[in-house]
Amino acid sequence: MDKKALYQLSYGVFMLASKAGDKVNGCITNTCMQVANSPTRVAISVLNTNYTCDLIKESGIFALSLLDDTCTYETIKHFGFQSGKNVDKMEGITFPEDLNGIPYLGWQTCAVISCKVVESMDLGSHTLFIGEVLDAKLLSENAPLTYADYQNRVKPKPQAVKEERKIVGWRCKICKYVYEGSELPADFVCPLCGHDRDDFEPIYE
Amino acid sequence: MDKKALYQLSYGVFMLASKAGDKVNGCITNTCMQVANSPTRVAISVLNTNYTCDLIKESGIFALSLLDDTCTYETIKHFGFQSGKNVDKMEGITFPEDLNGIPYLGWQTCAVISCKVVESMDLGSHTLFIGEVLDAKLLSENAPLTYADYQNRVKPKPQAVKEERKIVGWRCKICKYVYEGSELPADFVCPLCGHDRDDFEPIYE
Repeated sequence: MDKKALYQLSYGVFMLASKAGDKVNGCITNTCMQVANSPTRVAISVLNTNYTCDLIKESGIFALSLLDDTCTYETIKHFGFQSGKNVDKMEGITFPEDLNGIPYLGWQTCAVISCKVVESMDLGSHTLFIGEVLDAKLLSENAPLTYADYQNRVKPKPQAVKEERKIVGWRCKICKYVYEGSELPADFVCPLCGHDRDDFEPIYE
Repeated sequence: MDKKALYQLSYGVFMLASKAGDKVNGCITNTCMQVANSPTRVAISVLNTNYTCDLIKESGIFALSLLDDTCTYETIKHFGFQSGKNVDKMEGITFPEDLNGIPYLGWQTCAVISCKVVESMDLGSHTLFIGEVLDAKLLSENAPLTYADYQNRVKPKPQAVKEERKIVGWRCKICKYVYEGSELPADFVCPLCGHDRDDFEPIYE
């Protein structure tokens, strides 16, 4: 199987948020599709290690902010590159809230979709949630950010590695997992947090 | 709920094919996302009225041809605008076949993904299938066709309506369903075949 073939699937980029009691969190995801139109339902897939996944399982509600093409790398980093288990990502920021009281992004976002979970399925690394759409709003006329746009334009290119130093391993910048070996395979995915090769940094001898 | 907000979700465009015994068919869909990475699984959603949906339910296997940016409107029409219940779409064309013997497109296609169904869920209008990926191959270096590209570039623009003639109804070009009334709502979706307003033609007095 050539995993690069799977990279040719097209996705958007989203800030997925949930709330359970007084716990609130949001993360960056790239999986959402409408899967039925009567009633209107969407499917999302969320890493089981994500704190937002725990909150959705607990409360059965979520809000998806559809990031648009004005989205900055800072927004992706804020919600995507740190865990709500360690940091309150909502602290000090005033967010608009949807009908369930879940915060969504009122900027860099073209639409927001609010759902309640009607089915879920544990798929090992991820949980698939089927959400009945309770509300959906257009927020701007900007084009949605696609995952390809994010990879090609928004995400900074990895710096060229200085070849004179010997690489003995690779560290995941997200969760600190260490891969031992000088060559990180091109299709390597972090077994702990699911991020790909681009989120690893070299460890030098 | 503003359904236009849901139109901001990003999708690819696919030729989804299946085979059950000596029955073979393919249709055009826009829903596929990778939903887990250990094991590698994708989710697709298929209209229950589609013949391809019947074949997937019967055999539990499917192949997804990821259309690329060289895809023509003729290809979309051939697989998307006629039903395999009435027409043999595969007749007279030689297709490559995947490991399950399912035909895929060897042209206008950047990758093919072959799956067996491990879970399915009836969602009313559609069935959601979770497929374990058995094989995946890159076929070209062309960029994948996105659903937005298809709408903006590949699909012909509807001809301007001659305003001097009175419109009394709208006919779905796909399944011939008739909507009675002069104004077809912007978010109207055909209750029989699920196609949207762009696939309706006016009926004049």
